[in-house]
Amino acid sequence: MGLFKDQGVVYKPVEEVDLGPKSDHVYLRANVKAPRMAGLLVKIFTWFLESRIFGTILVYMLKKNNLIHKLVTNAQLEESPLYVPLHPFEDLKEQEVKCIDSKLSPPEQVQQAMDCLPNSSEKSLRGLQSSFRHWTILDYSRAYNLKEITPRMVAERFIAAVNESSNPPSRMSFFIDYNAEDILRQADKSTLRYEQGNPISILDGIPIAIKDEIDCSPYPTTGGTKWLHKVRPCTGDASCVKCLRLCGAILVGKTNMHEIGAGTSGINPHYGATRNPYDISKIAGGSSSGSAAVVAAGLCPVALGVDGGGSVRMPAALCGVIGLKPTFGRIPHNGYAAMNGQLPPDQPTRPKLYFPLLNPTKSISDVKMAKYAEWFNDCSDDIRTCCSKALDKLQEHYSWKIVEVTIPEIEVMRLAHYSTIGSECSTALSSHLEKLKPEEIGWDARVALSVYGSFSSKEYIKAQKIRNRQMQFHMKIFAEADVIVSPTTGVTAYPIQDDASETGELDYINGAALVRYSIAGNFLGLPAVTVPVGYDKLGLPIGLQFIGQPWSEPTLIHIASAMQAICKPDYKKPEVFYNLLKKD
Amino acid sequence: MGLFKDQGVVYKPVEEVDLGPKSDHVYLRANVKAPRMAGLLVKIFTWFLESRIFGTILVYMLKKNNLIHKLVTNAQLEESPLYVPLHPFEDLKEQEVKCIDSKLSPPEQVQQAMDCLPNSSEKSLRGLQSSFRHWTILDYSRAYNLKEITPRMVAERFIAAVNESSNPPSRMSFFIDYNAEDILRQADKSTLRYEQGNPISILDGIPIAIKDEIDCSPYPTTGGTKWLHKVRPCTGDASCVKCLRLCGAILVGKTNMHEIGAGTSGINPHYGATRNPYDISKIAGGSSSGSAAVVAAGLCPVALGVDGGGSVRMPAALCGVIGLKPTFGRIPHNGYAAMNGQLPPDQPTRPKLYFPLLNPTKSISDVKMAKYAEWFNDCSDDIRTCCSKALDKLQEHYSWKIVEVTIPEIEVMRLAHYSTIGSECSTALSSHLEKLKPEEIGWDARVALSVYGSFSSKEYIKAQKIRNRQMQFHMKIFAEADVIVSPTTGVTAYPIQDDASETGELDYINGAALVRYSIAGNFLGLPAVTVPVGYDKLGLPIGLQFIGQPWSEPTLIHIASAMQAICKPDYKKPEVFYNLLKKD
Repeated sequence: MGLFKDQGVVYKPVEEVDLGPKSDHVYLRANVKAPRMAGLLVKIFTWFLESRIFGTILVYMLKKNNLIHKLVTNAQLEESPLYVPLHPFEDLKEQEVKCIDSKLSPPEQVQQAMDCLPNSSEKSLRGLQSSFRHWTILDYSRAYNLKEITPRMVAERFIAAVNESSNPPSRMSFFIDYNAEDILRQADKSTLRYEQGNPISILDGIPIAIKDEIDCSPYPTTGGTKWLHKVRPCTGDASCVKCLRLCGAILVGKTNMHEIGAGTSGINPHYGATRNPYDISKIAGGSSSGSAAVVAAGLCPVALGVDGGGSVRMPAALCGVIGLKPTFGRIPHNGYAAMNGQLPPDQPTRPKLYFPLLNPTKSISDVKMAKYAEWFNDCSDDIRTCCSKALDKLQEHYSWKIVEVTIPEIEVMRLAHYSTIGSECSTALSSHLEKLKPEEIGWDARVALSVYGSFSSKEYIKAQKIRNRQMQFHMKIFAEADVIVSPTTGVTAYPIQDDASETGELDYINGAALVRYSIAGNFLGLPAVTVPVGYDKLGLPIGLQFIGQPWSEPTLIHIASAMQAICKPDYKKPEVFYNLLKKD
Repeated sequence: MGLFKDQGVVYKPVEEVDLGPKSDHVYLRANVKAPRMAGLLVKIFTWFLESRIFGTILVYMLKKNNLIHKLVTNAQLEESPLYVPLHPFEDLKEQEVKCIDSKLSPPEQVQQAMDCLPNSSEKSLRGLQSSFRHWTILDYSRAYNLKEITPRMVAERFIAAVNESSNPPSRMSFFIDYNAEDILRQADKSTLRYEQGNPISILDGIPIAIKDEIDCSPYPTTGGTKWLHKVRPCTGDASCVKCLRLCGAILVGKTNMHEIGAGTSGINPHYGATRNPYDISKIAGGSSSGSAAVVAAGLCPVALGVDGGGSVRMPAALCGVIGLKPTFGRIPHNGYAAMNGQLPPDQPTRPKLYFPLLNPTKSISDVKMAKYAEWFNDCSDDIRTCCSKALDKLQEHYSWKIVEVTIPEIEVMRLAHYSTIGSECSTALSSHLEKLKPEEIGWDARVALSVYGSFSSKEYIKAQKIRNRQMQFHMKIFAEADVIVSPTTGVTAYPIQDDASETGELDYINGAALVRYSIAGNFLGLPAVTVPVGYDKLGLPIGLQFIGQPWSEPTLIHIASAMQAICKPDYKKPEVFYNLLKKD
């Protein structure tokens, strides 16, 4: 029934797939068939792709060569489609979890959360104090309370640092927009509150940067584009930003990102390639490139990103900072320039904001970590070695256990997720795109949008069937283990090449290696965290990822904290680093 | 961004749309642009449609002309997509509802349900006894218990009647398959149970026919095709059939249907055009053509159908019988040859079988019926007059009230539902279709499959956004009214033309008129019932439809019963009718 036909694979019923370490399932490496392109080559490729006839053939060849036809479009599988990875929110029954009263005000909630912070690991490993560590929110708060420094002074240093970093020689391209006047105004108010002995919360005076696809007054929300803010005006703070503002945080501007989030390098043709603070010749990763980089560079102790396909975790790993992606449905989506449309339906019974945290009186023990060896090892040698050592240390220090497993069809899940997020992004933007001239969009984003717009409803629905399979596989694994552990990325930060500055670059091989470990977090709505655990031979950071069960952020945060405590002694100072808390 | 471009409509936010009777919303009539085709013309059209280049252009023109591009593909709307019309099952709070214990066996459940049957309306209107009425389950049961007749005698008469109806001159094409031996074996067992004074339930010995897309041993499940049963063997009874069998029902065979359910006429090129018992020159409607027709012809007091887009209600209305489409999620889908994939996800907390019924001690009163006049009147003159009179009678007899409303974008919902069910059907069948030769599929089904397979992921996702809007509109209307009332179809049964027998026919204008009132039931998962309320000038039946709130089947059944009681005096005997209960 068609001239072109690619035989699809026949998937075994879920219950017949062996998830044990000796499964006969064959691990499929990413079969990316697309050479790196930049500069004129990208332009020519884009012209072809956007032409009606050549484009159709080209997209067909791309999908065929990258096994989308075989593994998704024509695949045979019996599962019902699962369209939204929303997990029922059931009260966590673990004794060690304490739930924060959602009726409290944001500052009160922050205080309750503070009371739950673990401090034992920090103390017990104090002997291993490192030569370098990033200042945390607690460091800022202590310094403010001890009058060692004021929010006003931090704000002034911040502005000077951002100015310096924006200009030659470094041209870090951290921010798309920041407003010195607005920052100082917030800082002055915070300073006054500390002077009056009346800070709102521990977040009072903390500089926090926001990815430029989350609404934050007084800035337009560009999504890394030159046009989104014109067709979708920002009308106020997003829910998550509103909470931070109510807690007294200083919102210091909008961070750079890959255009419309459609890439993993963070090379933005309009606002510059965000540079990696550990090596300014390298990418920061993406799409939340600026948010990860400003934390690494010491400009903020924390920043907000958006993670639709590893977009928080990948740059966090490449920039040597912690990155947390919460359970799908945890954070309200209001005020987020939804470019993929994957918003949870309104569920009035689900709490709007709900932070269960581990009770400080209990400590976590006997963590079982599922590891799929072939997948774990499908990365650069340095990453494999470093992440394996980190796992060894966890087992030594805490006696946690490794459970060897097989997670089938991971590459299939990547392709299914790509078809899904591509379709949803293309649909969400379609009415805007119609009104744009092609010149208003970056070249690599145009390529992405051409492919995103090419999916059929069959491909989309098949992808949702694959989601159902993967959900079942993962839930079975979580019956045996608390978390799944893997490297965060398959490669470390790679060079920003000159030819990419105008057109961006198409580098699907590095892209697939970066995103290799990210997909379950997004496609299945699972929480995940990346923790810096070391460096490659060039001194570039490496992250280890823990993927948790739905709503298990408390566990993840404690695991990350325990992991970080062990690795801290080896932490290195980035090449570009601003110490906003230094005593004059 | 594309050579071909159709401006999409911009939909107002839901909260700005006035649903009152004086709304400025303009009712959009179905804008079907496709002439009736049959015979050679269908073949030529199919060849063009299946050719890669002409097909692409042809489908493009079809979608454009039928406003799919304008109203769906390129539409601008802000709602999140809503993929599955699953309503939370909350215990019905109305006092008059009694819930049946789902832990009981099927026969015990039937007994509990029986105890809830209304008998007041029947009695109070006994003075108006009609000259003709179809025998009901109760009539059969009484006759068996009074030893007036045995299940064996009914089975023999049934087999004789089906044999007669299958042959010239009438050639009714009621069944795709029935097995006399199997029927007699079941009837003998039932007869023995009655002889021993030990029938299983009121369903014992009742002949019940099953649409041939529901699994029922010992028959293959063809779905009206020549191939589906070869690639999808029937391995046992579907859940719903299993229940009937456990209650002692005699399963009398598999009824004819439109091929793969992809049409509304019931003209099947492989198994014949099911003829309307009220006029054998006319269609029975579809896709559950045989199930409606056998009930009308007196062969069964009840038959099972499947309603994915009015497929139970339309033929029921055309054949002058009651047709009930339950809430999405009410009936387990196991053993149904899912051709559209719209299966509810597994929800272990939702009861598997759950029959709330009205408590017999209470009677229904003060029903508020929402009526959208422009939509209600968008049908043939005879239907409009007849349905309006039926409504008048309801108001007279029971003092029920009409609430005038506006239901916006009904035609948009039809197109969105078509894109959805088409995409899902095409996806569900895709792996089978690849292996088939085109000759194995009927011509009109090939046309349908060509269009079904043409939808993009953008069209599919936009359709789900439209579903979200409609869900909100309907829930707002249900805040003001108990049910929505409308005719069941826009036309009555039309002629079966000779040229359609080999190729089927493409008659999208009549198709759209048939399906006009059906879509909310399916796209929004709402329960709905059609009740025969009269006849057109040619004596062809007319149905009135009540659409209910989620899980409100008890209310719908009582409304239908009240409506039927009023209309019974006018009921006419069909041209083809077999009286299986007549005394010899």
